[in-house]
Amino acid sequence: MIGFPASLERLVQLFTRLPGIGRKSATRMALKLLTSPEAECAELAGAIMDARTRTIGCSICGGLTEDDPCAICSDARRDPSTVCVVERPSDILALERTGRFRGRYHVLGGLLSPLDGIGPENLRIDRLLDRLEGKTIAEIILALNPTAEGEATALYVARLLSQRGINVTKLASGLPVGGELDLADELTLGTALDERRAV
Amino acid sequence: MIGFPASLERLVQLFTRLPGIGRKSATRMALKLLTSPEAECAELAGAIMDARTRTIGCSICGGLTEDDPCAICSDARRDPSTVCVVERPSDILALERTGRFRGRYHVLGGLLSPLDGIGPENLRIDRLLDRLEGKTIAEIILALNPTAEGEATALYVARLLSQRGINVTKLASGLPVGGELDLADELTLGTALDERRAV
Repeated sequence: MIGFPASLERLVQLFTRLPGIGRKSATRMALKLLTSPEAECAELAGAIMDARTRTIGCSICGGLTEDDPCAICSDARRDPSTVCVVERPSDILALERTGRFRGRYHVLGGLLSPLDGIGPENLRIDRLLDRLEGKTIAEIILALNPTAEGEATALYVARLLSQRGINVTKLASGLPVGGELDLADELTLGTALDERRAV
Repeated sequence: MIGFPASLERLVQLFTRLPGIGRKSATRMALKLLTSPEAECAELAGAIMDARTRTIGCSICGGLTEDDPCAICSDARRDPSTVCVVERPSDILALERTGRFRGRYHVLGGLLSPLDGIGPENLRIDRLLDRLEGKTIAEIILALNPTAEGEATALYVARLLSQRGINVTKLASGLPVGGELDLADELTLGTALDERRAV
């Protein structure tokens, strides 16, 4: 049986290492590149290395940046007394897109998951405590996924912060805006009911 | 609003140019690369350029290869009197995986599609005729997609070849092996009925 030429096969293999990319997608992507101008391939190859070498984690919040500290941590107009705690750097972008938050962020770098061997020492929790030490903190907003691991992590962090007398909140759970009530799963709808608010 | 660092944003943009990759997939892929060892990124960047520069189209069949002519065209054990005509190089691999064909291939490089401005002159049909000129040809198998464009292209090529007295066949249409009869669409089931064979 004849397969792909070796160099093409290798590219397909490497593409399948990326998240969400199976053999079929990887093949389509690789074949597309083969028929693209060589300059476009060079552009992509260069961009991969550029992104990898230039993008670093902010030494304060852990967000992705090319300059340390990042644009948010070094922006004096952003309220340092309100810190929003997220799991991943990409969560910062999602929150920034809302345009509703003017404080700072802190990336945990994961969620507690004892089964996967991820304990508090593997997350940036110590760094959060160090960062808050001696500062006046109005509020810490926990913006973690409303999953079992997210909730467990939120509980753990909230307890540590409460011991230090810090005001801790977490994002509201409920119906997605624009969604339909009868399409919501029972957990979401139940939470929306439990946490109903005065109009 | 704060977005991704510029180098990361550029990588995401370039990934979205690949087929089947939207903004979300591109972001996941790019973020995965950022957290991979730099050597892995270099490996991927190198593989892209390697595949692009080393893989060429076989001057005879149009299949993908690193050496010209390709392994199939230069394999004396493969019957040159039987040629299977396919749309794309990747179709050759699909047919090779069946292990049922011992002839040669010819890649058209597309299908007739007047609405998209793709006429016979845009396909490798002339090259097929040149290639067959003066040779003893037992059979040309048209292995094109059983779609409107595939059928139209097959008809066009079949007519040209028949004029030259060449025996032309096409792949059978019918029920997918292992599929269920009541899940087949009516066109497929109708074709399977029309083209039923003696047991």
